[in-house]
Parts: sequence; structure tokens; C-alpha cells
Amino acid sequence: MAVYTEVSDEELIDFLATYNLGDLLSCKGIAEGVENTNYLIHTSAGPHILTLYEKRVARGDLPYFLGLMEHLSSAGITCPLPVRDRDGEMLRELAGRPAAIITFLEGVWIRNPRPEHCSELGQALARMHLAGQSYSRTRANSLSAAAWQPLFDSFGTDADSIAQDLSSELENEIGDLENSWPHSLPAGVIHADLFPDNVFFLGKRISGFIDFYFACNDMLAYDVAICLNAWCFEKDNSFNITKARALLAAYNQIRPLTGEEYDALPVLARGAAMRFLLTRIFDWLNVAGDALVRPKDPLEYVRKLRFHKSVTSARDYGLGGD
Amino acid sequence: MAVYTEVSDEELIDFLATYNLGDLLSCKGIAEGVENTNYLIHTSAGPHILTLYEKRVARGDLPYFLGLMEHLSSAGITCPLPVRDRDGEMLRELAGRPAAIITFLEGVWIRNPRPEHCSELGQALARMHLAGQSYSRTRANSLSAAAWQPLFDSFGTDADSIAQDLSSELENEIGDLENSWPHSLPAGVIHADLFPDNVFFLGKRISGFIDFYFACNDMLAYDVAICLNAWCFEKDNSFNITKARALLAAYNQIRPLTGEEYDALPVLARGAAMRFLLTRIFDWLNVAGDALVRPKDPLEYVRKLRFHKSVTSARDYGLGGD
Repeated sequence: MAVYTEVSDEELIDFLATYNLGDLLSCKGIAEGVENTNYLIHTSAGPHILTLYEKRVARGDLPYFLGLMEHLSSAGITCPLPVRDRDGEMLRELAGRPAAIITFLEGVWIRNPRPEHCSELGQALARMHLAGQSYSRTRANSLSAAAWQPLFDSFGTDADSIAQDLSSELENEIGDLENSWPHSLPAGVIHADLFPDNVFFLGKRISGFIDFYFACNDMLAYDVAICLNAWCFEKDNSFNITKARALLAAYNQIRPLTGEEYDALPVLARGAAMRFLLTRIFDWLNVAGDALVRPKDPLEYVRKLRFHKSVTSARDYGLGGD
Repeated sequence: MAVYTEVSDEELIDFLATYNLGDLLSCKGIAEGVENTNYLIHTSAGPHILTLYEKRVARGDLPYFLGLMEHLSSAGITCPLPVRDRDGEMLRELAGRPAAIITFLEGVWIRNPRPEHCSELGQALARMHLAGQSYSRTRANSLSAAAWQPLFDSFGTDADSIAQDLSSELENEIGDLENSWPHSLPAGVIHADLFPDNVFFLGKRISGFIDFYFACNDMLAYDVAICLNAWCFEKDNSFNITKARALLAAYNQIRPLTGEEYDALPVLARGAAMRFLLTRIFDWLNVAGDALVRPKDPLEYVRKLRFHKSVTSARDYGLGGD
């Protein structure tokens, strides 16, 4: 949660004047989003989110992210819709930052997802994957398997301050994953960060996905694996097979997993755990003294990684093989 | 800016069910307010603020604050209106904290107030003072002159780490202020923290005051002095007499200052500078390592204090004497 960049009222009013959104009624910095500064603005045209992109988001990637939200919206996948200004631009500049206004998506994120939420997620994820197939832009996954060794090398044995011998465990595991990482699974647009706080519900139904700023082109089943990690473990780090079964079965109904995808789930889940473990360790070791964001505990993902190493087949995730 | 207390969606939905506000549509932690946790919630009944009162606000004072907002609202002074639940209660409990829902006040606060904003402020402040005269509850000012010596004693010479010899300057000044502090000026309900971020504008007009959590009964002219400090200095700490004149003249139109109040303005402004200087020093020296709030610079108020010491009469604030 953070507001990194302050925007003056004069700047904001001038900025808004180039959109067809009417008058500014209020503007509140909101405490969601780790990467960017977000304001919830009320205008005569309704509530919107104003995002200022901070340095961790590459400016060159923004047309991919904003274009994707527009593409998915037009394909009936609810997500924030970037608002175009009177010149037709979605990406602007404000307070020295790249900036965009997107529609406000009503909904609350679920702190303690139940199996029925995982089922909703599975369906919506599969629908998003199908809708993404017709998106024309591409963006490589900058945090894919090839990125893990350099990311690990950036801290190396410093990781041992978090858990004993963690660095050697990671190094061995990265080697194993590189050798076993699949390369020919069905690919497309993935969200790549679909944690519960990026999925909004109204009642029992998903009202939409948010925060597409890690989206990229990669294996679709890797997105499923990220969700298994993010949605199907309990607070005590035990794996909840009922939730995994609900997620996978619902996904499968909309977009059936291939046999190869199914077989690859354990290694993809290990890789997904590694990817979040590495960035969490990096953030943990590099947190600035004046940080407004508390880094997330890396140990949670050490435990998830170890769980997936213990899995022998995707059957352990609750879905019958084919 | 801070969200100190997390509220789960289940807790919030249960909590809201006891109000006539319809369904929860969204809930965002907002980065405004230093003392409490604030969420902007959208419900079927419109936007509201949910406040969880953190430990710096005494629970016993909350009925005074909430009752005051209700009193002022009913007297036509726009401010957030506490919403009563189905049992008629304004003050509830949520996530282990005292909690209240108040109406959302549209408007933006002015980062760089101009004289016309100060004029609006002066009028609205005087109207609030008049409306407060009929409020029946009372609350002593816990940060009045009597509190300054004990507050100073809590850090003493540690203040010298902020500026050389600051502690002896403060000690002398507190002694002077205690000797010259007025005791028989017109009193009533004051806001006591009317900084620009607590005054919302829509266009050129004030849409309301917020954040009544320092409100108390004290000298009305002391509230004016707090505003002189908070609104009439430039970023370079120079005093802008045009803004002060606008503020005082507009106040005077609605509630004419008495001769005694007018004469006391310089000492009240010194005292107001001392009050904020002392709490800023305290916060500066006591900021926790994991604080989500950056303390405000105390030196700004050292310079304001010194300015007011140089003032010989209220004429220096731009208003002709009577």
C-alpha cells in the first residue's frame, strides 16, 4: 500500500480537463497496489482509478498492459477499462510519471477464499485465457525461468539470513527447474499475478480482475500454477486439495487442460513458487528504511516450494488424470 | 497516510448488515489521515468513510467528536455526518477497534491555498464557531498551554538533535507563553486542526470540513491563530500578509473579533506554533522503525514560531485594529 507520487489539485484538474469525465469531485490516495501510485477519483462521470506508474513498471510495457485491458473488456472479460482522452490516448503523463485513468471496478477481494471462490476463479481464468488468444501485442515474461538464476545471483548467500542453507536449496532447485521446465505447452496471454487481492467479487460472483501489470505471453498452465499457490494453501501453509480440485475442475470446464499441461502442473507449480520466492527474498533483503510497503514474508513460499517438490503427479492436486 | 488495521470482507459485510446502507460494493483503504485507519466504502447507498479509531484517539472522546459532526451538520455546517445503525448507534466496534461510518464528503483539499481560499476558510470557520455555541457536550483541549511543558519534558534536550539549542529556545518560550497566555477570551467549540488537508473545496467554494478528532472547547481566536499558521505561510516559510488579511477579514464579517481577541492574536499564533512544533518534535523523535507515516518536519514550525515572536501587534497580520 503506497502513495509514492503526490499530485497537486491544479495538476489533476488540468489533467482531467483533457478527458470527457466532467468535474473532479474528490481524489483519495488508496492503499492498494505495491508497484504504483493509485488514486480513487470521483468525477461527474463516476468513480475512476488514476494510476501513476512508478519506476518498477517499464514505460515501454504500458501499451501492452493498457491495450490488454481494453481488449479483454471488449471481449466481455470484466476488468478496468482504460479511458481514452479527447485525443484518443490512453497513456498520458502526470507529475512526471506515465499515467492513465481506468474505470473503477466495484467488488471486494476475498481474504479467505473458500472452494466456491476457487471455482469461480478457475472459470474466469480460463475465459480470460481464451479471450487473450486474439490479442495482437506480445510481451515476454521478464520473470520466467530464464530470469531466476540472475535474480538469485543478485543476493546469493544473503538469502541464508532468512533461513539456514536457503541459498544452496535455491541454487539446486533452480538447476532442477531449468532442466525440467516445459517449453512446448499451449501459450498465450497470462495475468501472471492473480493473487486474491487482484480478483474482485460481488457476492458469490467474480466482478473482475485487476492489476495487469505483470501480464505477459507465457504458458497458460503456468498461470493456473500461480493460482494454485496463491489460492489453495491455508494460512498454516497446508495445501487444501478441495480448493485445488475446485479451481482445476472449473478451469477444465471452460478450457480443458491438455495431457501435457496436466502432467506439467507439478513442475509449473514449483516454478511459480520459485518465481515469487525469489522476488520476495529480493524485496526482503532490499527494503529501504523509509519504505511505505512492508515486504511479504518469503518463508511462505519456501514452504510452498517444498510442498510441490513432494508432489509426484498432478493427481495430488485433486484432478483425475486423463 | 496509513492503514493500521485490516478488516476482513466477512467482518465488514457483517458490520454493514446492521446499517441501512444496502450491499457492500467496494472497500479501499485510503492514504489520508494520520491518526486513524480510513476505508472508502461504496455501498448501494453511496460512498461512505469507515473509520477505525487507533490508539491515539481516546475512546471516551469519540461521542464528543461524532456528536459534534452531527450537531454541525444539523446546523447547516457541511461536514461528514455519522451514520446511525439500526439501533441508533453511531459508535460501534470492528476488528477490535472503535469504529464509525460517516458520509463521504466530496471535494479536494488545496495544496497551495490562494487568498480567495483563505477568505472562504475565514467565513466557514466563523460560521462553524457560531454553530458550535449550541453544542452541549464539552471536551477540554488536551494540547493547550498547560500541556506544553510536560510534552517538552518528555524529550527535553533530545530536541537539540533537530536544531542547535532548540531545547533552551523552547523552554524559554514556553515560560513566556504561560505568563502571557490569555484566559478570558470568548470560548466555544474549536476544530483545533484546520490544516488545508482538512478543508475540502469544490471549485472555489468550501464543500466542508473533515477530521474533527482534535476538536475541543477553547478560545475561538486560538482556532483562527492555528489557521494563520497553517494557511498563510509560503513553502519558503515567509508569511503572506495578503492571505492573512483575507482570512481575518472574512472571519470578521461573520463573527467580528473583539478588541481583546484582536490584541491577543500574536500570542495565540505563537502558542499555536508551539503546540504543533512540540507534537512534531515528539513524533520526529519517536517515529517507529516500521512506521507507515513519515513524520512532518518540525523545523517548519520553529520558523513560524520565530516569525510570530517578531510580531509586535495584530496589525502585522494585515487586519486594521479597532
